[in-house]
Amino acid sequence: MKKIEHIGIAVKNLEEANKTYKAVMGSEHYKTETVESEGVATSFFRIGESKIELLAATSEDSPIAKFIEKRGEGIHHMAFAVDNIEAEIKRLEAEGFRLINDKPKQGADNKLVAFMHPKGAHGVLVELCQDINKFE
Amino acid sequence: MKKIEHIGIAVKNLEEANKTYKAVMGSEHYKTETVESEGVATSFFRIGESKIELLAATSEDSPIAKFIEKRGEGIHHMAFAVDNIEAEIKRLEAEGFRLINDKPKQGADNKLVAFMHPKGAHGVLVELCQDINKFE
Repeated sequence: MKKIEHIGIAVKNLEEANKTYKAVMGSEHYKTETVESEGVATSFFRIGESKIELLAATSEDSPIAKFIEKRGEGIHHMAFAVDNIEAEIKRLEAEGFRLINDKPKQGADNKLVAFMHPKGAHGVLVELCQDINKFE
Repeated sequence: MKKIEHIGIAVKNLEEANKTYKAVMGSEHYKTETVESEGVATSFFRIGESKIELLAATSEDSPIAKFIEKRGEGIHHMAFAVDNIEAEIKRLEAEGFRLINDKPKQGADNKLVAFMHPKGAHGVLVELCQDINKFE
């Protein structure tokens, strides 16, 4: 694991949360992105080598809507940057962890991503992220 | 806010969680520290410029025990490194945020720390951390 790629925060209203986090971070979000397949609208703030990703549901059956219904707004996941996501998935499976995605899938922010089961990681939803190399 | 200083994870059993996170991170924790005044035992893992801090309660009335009782194990807070914590507290108060600590207090890992109210930050407990300068 190279670095914390981002911390994902589930929010009810992306515009309001953008204002709040602009005030907290002292800087504007630098991009927004909607991932229809995941039912989520996102915005990103830079902090050091990492990012804060705000996540709002775009539909009632979005995982973010369900998370907020159950637990309220708050930190939804933490994501680690990896060089080789397929190798990392294999390493974690060999360590006995269950992955929600045993194959990487396309995520926001031009990444291949895979999530670990939170039960295996003391209640934390861990995401692995690998940059997609556009030149491959 | 300079960087993500650490992500704090509330766990029931520090030894077990150390084993789990060693397997997740692919590296050992590099230190442990007990902060009696907070009722908490901690261990730290490095990742890039940041850390993962595991937090276990040392008493039943520890904030970590209460958090786990209410929500289960999981991410407890995120901490941002700042150069001047007193200036940052003033800036956030001027932005309309409420701080749990309006004066910095001694935290783990040789830091001055202050927490923001999670209600003002979409359910996220945000910690500000400033390194204590030993030569002052």
